[in-house]
Amino acid sequence: MTAFHGQQFIAGGRRGNAATFAATSPVDGTELPGRFSLATPADAADALCAAADAFPAFAATSGAARAGLLEGIAEEILALGDDLVARVRAETALPEARVVGERGRTVGQLRLFAQLAREGTWCDARIDPAQPARQPLPRADIRRVKVPLGPVVVFGSSNFPLAFSVAGGDTASALATGNPVVVKAHRGHPGTSELVAGAIGRAVAKAGLPGGVFGMLHGAGATVGTALVEHPLAAAVGFTGSRAGGRALFDAAARRSHPIPVFAEMSSLNPVFLLPGALASRGEAIATGFVGSMTLGVGQFCTKPGLVVGIEGPDYAHFRGLLASAVAGAAPGRMLTGEILAAYRKGSGDLVGNGGTALLATGAAGTRPDDAVALVATTTAAAFLGDARLGEEVFGPASLVVSAATRDEMLAVARHLDGQLTATVHGTPADLEQAADLLAILATKAGRLIVNGYPTGVEVGHAMQHGGPWPATSDPRFTSVGAAALERFIRPVCYQDVPDGLLPAALQNANPLGIVRLVDGQPSRAALA
Amino acid sequence: MTAFHGQQFIAGGRRGNAATFAATSPVDGTELPGRFSLATPADAADALCAAADAFPAFAATSGAARAGLLEGIAEEILALGDDLVARVRAETALPEARVVGERGRTVGQLRLFAQLAREGTWCDARIDPAQPARQPLPRADIRRVKVPLGPVVVFGSSNFPLAFSVAGGDTASALATGNPVVVKAHRGHPGTSELVAGAIGRAVAKAGLPGGVFGMLHGAGATVGTALVEHPLAAAVGFTGSRAGGRALFDAAARRSHPIPVFAEMSSLNPVFLLPGALASRGEAIATGFVGSMTLGVGQFCTKPGLVVGIEGPDYAHFRGLLASAVAGAAPGRMLTGEILAAYRKGSGDLVGNGGTALLATGAAGTRPDDAVALVATTTAAAFLGDARLGEEVFGPASLVVSAATRDEMLAVARHLDGQLTATVHGTPADLEQAADLLAILATKAGRLIVNGYPTGVEVGHAMQHGGPWPATSDPRFTSVGAAALERFIRPVCYQDVPDGLLPAALQNANPLGIVRLVDGQPSRAALA
Repeated sequence: MTAFHGQQFIAGGRRGNAATFAATSPVDGTELPGRFSLATPADAADALCAAADAFPAFAATSGAARAGLLEGIAEEILALGDDLVARVRAETALPEARVVGERGRTVGQLRLFAQLAREGTWCDARIDPAQPARQPLPRADIRRVKVPLGPVVVFGSSNFPLAFSVAGGDTASALATGNPVVVKAHRGHPGTSELVAGAIGRAVAKAGLPGGVFGMLHGAGATVGTALVEHPLAAAVGFTGSRAGGRALFDAAARRSHPIPVFAEMSSLNPVFLLPGALASRGEAIATGFVGSMTLGVGQFCTKPGLVVGIEGPDYAHFRGLLASAVAGAAPGRMLTGEILAAYRKGSGDLVGNGGTALLATGAAGTRPDDAVALVATTTAAAFLGDARLGEEVFGPASLVVSAATRDEMLAVARHLDGQLTATVHGTPADLEQAADLLAILATKAGRLIVNGYPTGVEVGHAMQHGGPWPATSDPRFTSVGAAALERFIRPVCYQDVPDGLLPAALQNANPLGIVRLVDGQPSRAALA
Repeated sequence: MTAFHGQQFIAGGRRGNAATFAATSPVDGTELPGRFSLATPADAADALCAAADAFPAFAATSGAARAGLLEGIAEEILALGDDLVARVRAETALPEARVVGERGRTVGQLRLFAQLAREGTWCDARIDPAQPARQPLPRADIRRVKVPLGPVVVFGSSNFPLAFSVAGGDTASALATGNPVVVKAHRGHPGTSELVAGAIGRAVAKAGLPGGVFGMLHGAGATVGTALVEHPLAAAVGFTGSRAGGRALFDAAARRSHPIPVFAEMSSLNPVFLLPGALASRGEAIATGFVGSMTLGVGQFCTKPGLVVGIEGPDYAHFRGLLASAVAGAAPGRMLTGEILAAYRKGSGDLVGNGGTALLATGAAGTRPDDAVALVATTTAAAFLGDARLGEEVFGPASLVVSAATRDEMLAVARHLDGQLTATVHGTPADLEQAADLLAILATKAGRLIVNGYPTGVEVGHAMQHGGPWPATSDPRFTSVGAAALERFIRPVCYQDVPDGLLPAALQNANPLGIVRLVDGQPSRAALA
C-alpha cells in the first residue's frame, strides 16, 4: 500500500504546510489514508517562478526530447500498477474496468502526443524566401514557426482522475510543445494526484530536465487556483469542470493587466434529435443505446446526452415508453464525491419540480442510500423554449425528453440551444436526406455532430474536435482532445532576414527536422538552397 | 467630386439619423464636404441582425463564390479612382504616393485572400476513416473542418484608412472564410469609409449575396462600438488602435454572458538592438535607416521603432551624434487628426520632461505650426528599467535611445520589455554569432524578429506574423496580416459517422474541392474509397 507524503511538487522538490486535508471515500464518507498539505499563494508563486525559470531550456529542447519525456511519464504511470488503480477507485468509486480503461487512454494520449512532438509538424513552419529582385521593392526572407507560450496552469478535473487531471490531455499537450506545467490537483482525488505527479517528477528527472518543468499543488477552495491564474508568470490555463468554475477562471484571466488564454470546458447538454423514420424503425435500440450513454459512468461524462428532441406522435410516445422501461432498468451508481451527488439530486429534482415538466421514469433505487438514481423527465418544446433553466446541464444520469409539435418547432429548439460539445441526430437514410437544415443549425451550436451514435466515448485521433461554443467551452476554436490539442499552447514567431544558423531548426534551409513546411504557400519537405 | 449621402449601411440598404458630423481637414481644421449620420445602438442591432440572417447562406457559399466577392470588392475600389485617393488625402493628410500604395496593398490583400478562399486549404480538413474491426472497440468515421464563426465586428483604424479600415485585412479575412462583417467606421475618415463601403455594397449585390453580408456604421464616441461588441449576435471583433481602446473592447467582450474573441492590435515600441560590431561598422547607415523608419508616415505606423538599445561606449556615443544629425534633417509632417497630434505632443513632451531622460535632437520645425516634429530622447538602461512610463508607445515620430552599461544590462532591458509586434537586431555576422541569447529573449517578447532591417513595411505573405504578446495585441496566437489572418474567424466542427452526402464538400470522400487534407494524420489530396 502506498504511503503519501502529501506535499506540493515545486521546482523538482517537495514542500508541506501545516494545514492539511484528507481524501474522503465516496462510498462511505470515511477518510482515506494520507494527509495532504494545503498550498498557499506563496507556493503558487514559487511553482510558477520555477516553471518560468525552466521555460527557456524546456522550450529549446528537441521534439525527440519532449517525446521521450511524455513516453517516460507513460511508463512511470504504468509502473505505478495496481496501487494507482486501487487509489483511483478508492477516491472516485469508479469501477476497475473504467479506471484501467482511463489509464490506457491517458497513456495512449501521452504516446500520441509524443509521436506528434517527435514528428514536429505541429509547429506549422512557413517560409517565404527572399525575392531580392522583386519590383517595386525587394522581399525580405520571412519565416514563421510556432513556439510555446510559457508556464501553463492546469486544473485537474473531478470526472477524469487520470485522463483530464495531473497527466491528462492538458498537461500532455502543454509539455509536448515545450510549456512547463503547474497543476492544481482536484481536491477529490489528492492521492491519485500525488501518485501521478510523482510519476511525472521521476520522468522529468530521468530526462535530465529542470524540475520546474512540472509542479503540482493541492488546494481546497479557489484561493490557490486563483493565485495561479492571476500570477504574472502564468501564460495560459486549462480547465475541465463546472460552468461557474470555468467562468470564474476566465474572468480572473481576463481581468489581468496582461490577459491570458483560458481553455475551459464547462457544460453541455449534448442534445440528441430523433427523426421520424428512426423512431419508427429503431425506437427500442435507440432507447437502450441512449440510456446506456446517459448512465455510463453514472452520467458523469461531459458528453452525457442530457436532452432528447423528437416530434410528437405515436412513435415518439411509444419511444418514451421504451425509454421509461430502459431507465427503470438502469442500476444506481456511486458518484465521484458527496458534493457532486448533492448537486445531482438538486439538479434532477429541479428537472421534475419545474411546472412545465413531468417525470417519465427513474432508475432502480438499489439498497445503498447514497447512490445516484437515473432520471428522465419530459416536457414540451414550448415549455423548453420558454424556460432557460431547462437548458442547463444536470451533471449525472438525468435527461430531459422534449416533444416538438411540428418539425419547425424541432428546428426552433435546435436554434434555441446554447453552445454544446456535441449534437446527435438519429435518422434513416430517408430522414437524413431531409435533415440538411437541422445539421446546418447544429453545426453552429456544437463542436461535434454525430449521426446514429451516442456522444459518450471521445476518440483520441487527428480529426477529433472536443470543444464547442460557450458555455460548452470558453474557446470553440480549439480542442482539448486529439492531435489538434497541441495547438492551444503555442503562438507564431516570424523571423525576417535572420541568418540560417540563428533560426530555429524547423526553419533552417536544410530542414534538419524533415518536417512538412509551407514554402511560398506550398507544402514541401524539401531543403532550401 | 463625390457627393456623400452620409448614411449607415444596413442590410444592403441605407439609413440616416438626425444627428450628423462632418470630417475635418487635418491640414487646416476646416470641415470637409459631407455630413455623416451618427448611428444608434438600434442601428448596431439591426446591422448585426441582418448579418446573422445572412450568415447561413454566406457560410454555405463556395470558396470560389467568396473569392469572386473579394475580387469584386477590389475591382470596385479601383473603380473609385481618383475620387477615393483625393478623399483619403483630404481626410488624413497622407501623401498621394502613400495613399496609392496603400490602395494597392488593400487590393492585393483582397486578391490574396480571394486566392486562399478559392484554394480552400484554410479549412484544415482532417479525416480519420472508420476502423470497424478495431479492438477492443471499433473506431467511428471522424472528420473535421473549420467553419466561420458568424458576424464579425471590425473597427476601422485611423492610421490605415484603406488597408486596416472598411475593406482592410480584418474585413477581407472575415469575408474570405464566410463571416458577415459589420464595420464601425473610424470617425477620422467617414468619407473614405462611405466610398469603400459603397464599393463593397456593390460587390455584394453583384455577387447576388444577401445585403446583410456587409454593414457599416458611423459613430463618434464609444457608444456604437460598444453596442456592437456587446450584442449577442456578434461573434468576434477585429480592432486596430490605441491600447485603451483595445482594452475597453476586450473587457466588453469578456464581460458578455457568452464572451467572444477580440483581435485587438494596440501598442508596440518595436525595439531596435544595436550590437557593437554593427555600431562600429555601419553606424551612419543605421542612423539614417532608423530615422527613415521612425519618421515614415509621420511615425504613424504600429511598427514604428520607438526604442533603440545599445551598449555605452565611443561607438554608441558617435552613433547618437549621427542619429541627432539625421533627426535634425527629418522634415515635419501633418498627422492624421488633431487629436493624434495633441497626443503626440503630450507623449513626446513627456519623453523629455521625464527626470531620467534628456533630449537628443528634434527634427526641422518647418513653417506650418500644426505639423508634428520628430524627436529623439536618451536615457540610461537603469532609468528605463526603473520607469514603466518609458516603455509606453508614443504614437508619432519619436523614439527613445537607451544606453546600457554592459551587455548584461542590455539583456536585462530585453527581458524587461512588454509584448511587442516586432523586435530588431543589427549586428555583423560576428555580433550575431554571439547573440543567440538576445534573440531567444526577443522571441518571447515579439511576434516578428528582424535582423539588419527596420520594422516598418509589413509584407503580406504566407509566413508573415503581425501580432505579439499583450499589449502589442490581445491575442498573440493569431496574425492580422498575411495568409494566416484567415485563421482568426473560424472554428473546427467534427462530423462523426455523417453520410457522405451530408458532409461539407471539404470532407466528402471524392475530395471535390481538390484540397490537401490530413487523412489519418498524413497530408493527402487523394479521394477516399
